[in-house]
Amino acid sequence: MRVSGAHYRTIWPTSTGAVRVIDQSRLPFEFTTVDLETLDDAASAIRAMVVRGAPLIGATAAYGLALAARRDASDARLDEAAQTLQATRPTAHNLVWALERMRRALAAVPEAERAEAAYAEAARLCDEDAERCRSIGLEGLELIRRRAESAARPVNVLTHCNAGWLACVDWGTALAPVYAAHDAGIAVHVWVDETRPRNQGAALTAFELAAHGVPHTVIADNLGGHLMQRGRVDLVIVGSDRTTAAGDVCNKVGTYLKALAARDNDVPFYAALPASTIDWTLDRGEDIPIEERPAVELTHVTGRTAGGATETVRVVPETSPALNLAFDVTPARLVTALITERGICAASRTGLRSLYPDRPMPRSIAAARP
Amino acid sequence: MRVSGAHYRTIWPTSTGAVRVIDQSRLPFEFTTVDLETLDDAASAIRAMVVRGAPLIGATAAYGLALAARRDASDARLDEAAQTLQATRPTAHNLVWALERMRRALAAVPEAERAEAAYAEAARLCDEDAERCRSIGLEGLELIRRRAESAARPVNVLTHCNAGWLACVDWGTALAPVYAAHDAGIAVHVWVDETRPRNQGAALTAFELAAHGVPHTVIADNLGGHLMQRGRVDLVIVGSDRTTAAGDVCNKVGTYLKALAARDNDVPFYAALPASTIDWTLDRGEDIPIEERPAVELTHVTGRTAGGATETVRVVPETSPALNLAFDVTPARLVTALITERGICAASRTGLRSLYPDRPMPRSIAAARP
Repeated sequence: MRVSGAHYRTIWPTSTGAVRVIDQSRLPFEFTTVDLETLDDAASAIRAMVVRGAPLIGATAAYGLALAARRDASDARLDEAAQTLQATRPTAHNLVWALERMRRALAAVPEAERAEAAYAEAARLCDEDAERCRSIGLEGLELIRRRAESAARPVNVLTHCNAGWLACVDWGTALAPVYAAHDAGIAVHVWVDETRPRNQGAALTAFELAAHGVPHTVIADNLGGHLMQRGRVDLVIVGSDRTTAAGDVCNKVGTYLKALAARDNDVPFYAALPASTIDWTLDRGEDIPIEERPAVELTHVTGRTAGGATETVRVVPETSPALNLAFDVTPARLVTALITERGICAASRTGLRSLYPDRPMPRSIAAARP
Repeated sequence: MRVSGAHYRTIWPTSTGAVRVIDQSRLPFEFTTVDLETLDDAASAIRAMVVRGAPLIGATAAYGLALAARRDASDARLDEAAQTLQATRPTAHNLVWALERMRRALAAVPEAERAEAAYAEAARLCDEDAERCRSIGLEGLELIRRRAESAARPVNVLTHCNAGWLACVDWGTALAPVYAAHDAGIAVHVWVDETRPRNQGAALTAFELAAHGVPHTVIADNLGGHLMQRGRVDLVIVGSDRTTAAGDVCNKVGTYLKALAARDNDVPFYAALPASTIDWTLDRGEDIPIEERPAVELTHVTGRTAGGATETVRVVPETSPALNLAFDVTPARLVTALITERGICAASRTGLRSLYPDRPMPRSIAAARP
């Protein structure tokens, strides 16, 4: 996507073999890149949320393994590197998926050629992610187009967190249909949940929508329900960090509340995700590990002072503890449909099977079948 | 309630006839008071949320009229003063109620005696508010006690915004049952929604619970649904800024989302309120005016720097507009019961009638009756 007229992806290799990423911890006020030189650089970038968003976490992990391989491409070292990367964040399934794919691709390659092969495979993974997101956009575009045909005003999409191009390699998941609609000349407006405590909506979604010229309004996470009650939301589209084989959607904490409000007000609620987000080994959303992050993300807020400096302020008194769980699970029954790169399907085992008949079924589901 | 060992109310007259209030815009990091000398001081304090919370807004309006009366107690001047006060904030019903009560009390009083009578009436109104809140606490205490009897761990209460003693003259509405339970030796723990965008939960509820020694944890507004899914919330208690004669509850924006989550997880959802919050002239929650406040409350956050200074930082990029609506309406069907100073009742016309048979019925409801 474009920033100040130039085309960007969120991650790409440099001519010296470093991996360059946009430093998302400095957005929206500073657009800068940072070079990852080592495995530890990649792991730290994921952990500190310099890069974030399930697909981009996967892409960074893939390149992280390539960075490890250029120093030591032995099986033992790559095992260790994969473990280090996998331990960075527990919820996003794309991390597991990307590491498994890289290990599979490198297993049969002679050690001396592995670094080269790893860069090539990571690049393929990124290209495919961008292509999958583009497809998600085209699939979701039809939902927005249909809505636009029956509306005399711009189509109002509500989204939570950032599942735009900054969360992926390019295009985005939840925002891909929005970009596709906007680029197709359909009038669309996005309600952007600020997404406490890390403010990915206010900082990242608002930034990328503004950069692309898509009309939008930032709102408190608390407001979406009221807007739906008043008919001011036409559809909700969110991303996903892990989706079970039964269609339960794990996403940024607060997503479940929006799904409840959507159901209560007959607003369609969609999750947009590539197949790499689907955890075919799980059918129960309750079994997804929910990451607990440092309380300081909630008790302190970082922003820009009137003088232009970056400053962090405490907003919770020192005498009060705080709990910061980063995700929740929206049960499949509240999800109108899943938007994937292969099409739109019901959030159910049957729905996902219809699009992905080639995937292995989790044991618990296979056992439950007659 | 107590702050650093001393007993405080939120509002009281000084020996010189000024009205002293706790400056809630400086909490939680500074506990200071400010003296209101004129009607305009009182109106500004309400508008700028130096004082806030439906019952305290009512009490401040009552004293505001007394401040006006000591300069000019003519009917014309008091009419004008009431209009000024009523225009400060549109949603809280206690404001309308307090002004009507004051005008009624002063109507038959000779002009020369009105200032004295106004102070006396405002003081009575405050005493009664405190007493009503104490009664709400005792009524709600039984709900917590019953829950405690069947639990092997502290009773977990989730609350949204601040409906504690800082929102009232003393005791609070939603928090009154919590204080009553804590003081009765029942183990209780409060999940405190930070309550964006003004952070009344993080700043005020956390402050007053800590000051009183009640165990609590601050959470993002987004987290309550997940905690309910995991069985970590036993009951939700919120306050109300206006409750219709049919039991719809208008409260801080985001309340509706918690009510939906409570219903989806079989968690009881209570609103605690004195009769002064009930708008007997309205039966449909959709007819309550919803206040739009300045976007800057959402785009900027004020807190304390590491160096101890108060600083305001921008968190939404300049290129993005923001919308800040302050309340939403939870339909009566999602409210398990109302906790009032006269007892606990169903959130319905019949429920409220059973406790308040002496109140006039709104015309629309009377007309709908057979």
